Amino acid sequence: MSRVEVIPVSIAKDIKISKGYDLASLILYSIKANGLELMDKDVVVVTQKVVSKAEGRVVDLADVTPSDDAVKIAKEQEKDPRVVELMLRDAKRIVAMQNGVIITETRHGFVCANSAIDGSNVEDNCVTLLPIDPDASARRIRDGLMKATGKRVAVIISDTFGRPFREGQVNVAVGIAGMKPIIDYRGLRDMYGKELRVTSIAVADEVASAAELVMGKSRGIPVAIVRGLEYEDVEDASINELIREESRDIFLKLAASKGSVI
Amino acid sequence: MSRVEVIPVSIAKDIKISKGYDLASLILYSIKANGLELMDKDVVVVTQKVVSKAEGRVVDLADVTPSDDAVKIAKEQEKDPRVVELMLRDAKRIVAMQNGVIITETRHGFVCANSAIDGSNVEDNCVTLLPIDPDASARRIRDGLMKATGKRVAVIISDTFGRPFREGQVNVAVGIAGMKPIIDYRGLRDMYGKELRVTSIAVADEVASAAELVMGKSRGIPVAIVRGLEYEDVEDASINELIREESRDIFLKLAASKGSVI
Repeated sequence: MSRVEVIPVSIAKDIKISKGYDLASLILYSIKANGLELMDKDVVVVTQKVVSKAEGRVVDLADVTPSDDAVKIAKEQEKDPRVVELMLRDAKRIVAMQNGVIITETRHGFVCANSAIDGSNVEDNCVTLLPIDPDASARRIRDGLMKATGKRVAVIISDTFGRPFREGQVNVAVGIAGMKPIIDYRGLRDMYGKELRVTSIAVADEVASAAELVMGKSRGIPVAIVRGLEYEDVEDASINELIREESRDIFLKLAASKGSVI
Repeated sequence: MSRVEVIPVSIAKDIKISKGYDLASLILYSIKANGLELMDKDVVVVTQKVVSKAEGRVVDLADVTPSDDAVKIAKEQEKDPRVVELMLRDAKRIVAMQNGVIITETRHGFVCANSAIDGSNVEDNCVTLLPIDPDASARRIRDGLMKATGKRVAVIISDTFGRPFREGQVNVAVGIAGMKPIIDYRGLRDMYGKELRVTSIAVADEVASAAELVMGKSRGIPVAIVRGLEYEDVEDASINELIREESRDIFLKLAASKGSVI
């Protein structure tokens, strides 16, 4: 097993990413500007924030008229009703809410706070929404990178999520291209010939977490290259493999059994 | 921001770790045998499995007599009653159970499957339990490494946990020494001068996940060095910072509101 490197790729501060921006070109330009080049089997991790900006998933709150539901929930949870409105639009349902924390299931199936709507690192009074189809976003970036360089790479779109039971947030994968997000150990044997207890590793989430270690939150490093990883190179990768169905999820079922909030 | 390297440290296959083994010495020996040496600010990640073995936290199931409670639960969940007995002994309570999945809160406060009891990579008919005090385990290893090398390092004990909502397991930190497990961003500003939405990053969990990328599950690599990370070097580090109190956890409260199972 060889070492894995996690390499930060900064984007020049004067570059303002807006709708229609060609992210693959920007990433390649930035990789070169950082004195680096892409290699075969590199995994390029890109934060949701820049992808959402390049896809025009930025909303000026001044343009949002909250529904009655949004106003009611916002009052209860002490939130901006316009943000709650956007979160409801991007959600299949509210999973649970309490003390100002609103956990939704997004249209993609992610269970996270506020439908992953985020007002940091974006213009005043604006928020970003998740990409509509983050796997498609990852595929577009991957296609652009591969076409320009001839290198075979994978792309992960990452976002920062909280999780139950543990303090602190971690980066997880919300979109993927060119890499199987899960390593399946079912049927494999350990060093004693016994079946492994661990049946599958969410390697895409671990890569997203590793990438966060060089990104920080206030430093303008929205891209990282994870190099040296052994991964399964697949063309039909999808983040859906990481989304657990409600029927298999004890805590989602528990929340659902309390009745849908809206 | 510089790159971060994740370096696997294999342990020779003929070394059988048993109670009383000096892990710091074994890790240093293995680092050298891998042609490496420790550097200042390295984070040494060690899997729970080898720590538990070195601390004698291995139980032969033949020696376990299950209680009536354990027999009842084992029958319902189709588990080995002796394993259920051990899991109950190591738990403050059962948080939820269903379809053969038993989620407990361990004596340490971790919410995880089966009190993290694990039968893989250990002798036939045996299981490992978590270390009694994983922070103390990490401190002992750190002290040994620092004394022998004069290098200032941090140590993380890692284990593989599932999580709600997402498929696949990931490595998380269960013990820590010499490094603050959370990076606190409260009050910090983004590039637009706005307060950050992300308030804290569980960097210890991200390091554990990064380390897993070079460990695999059936390869005999229980140690990794994470090098180049900027982290806060503290003497009184504790994994307790990563454990969320029930009063702050929506899903733990939901589970508790259904009534304690035992």
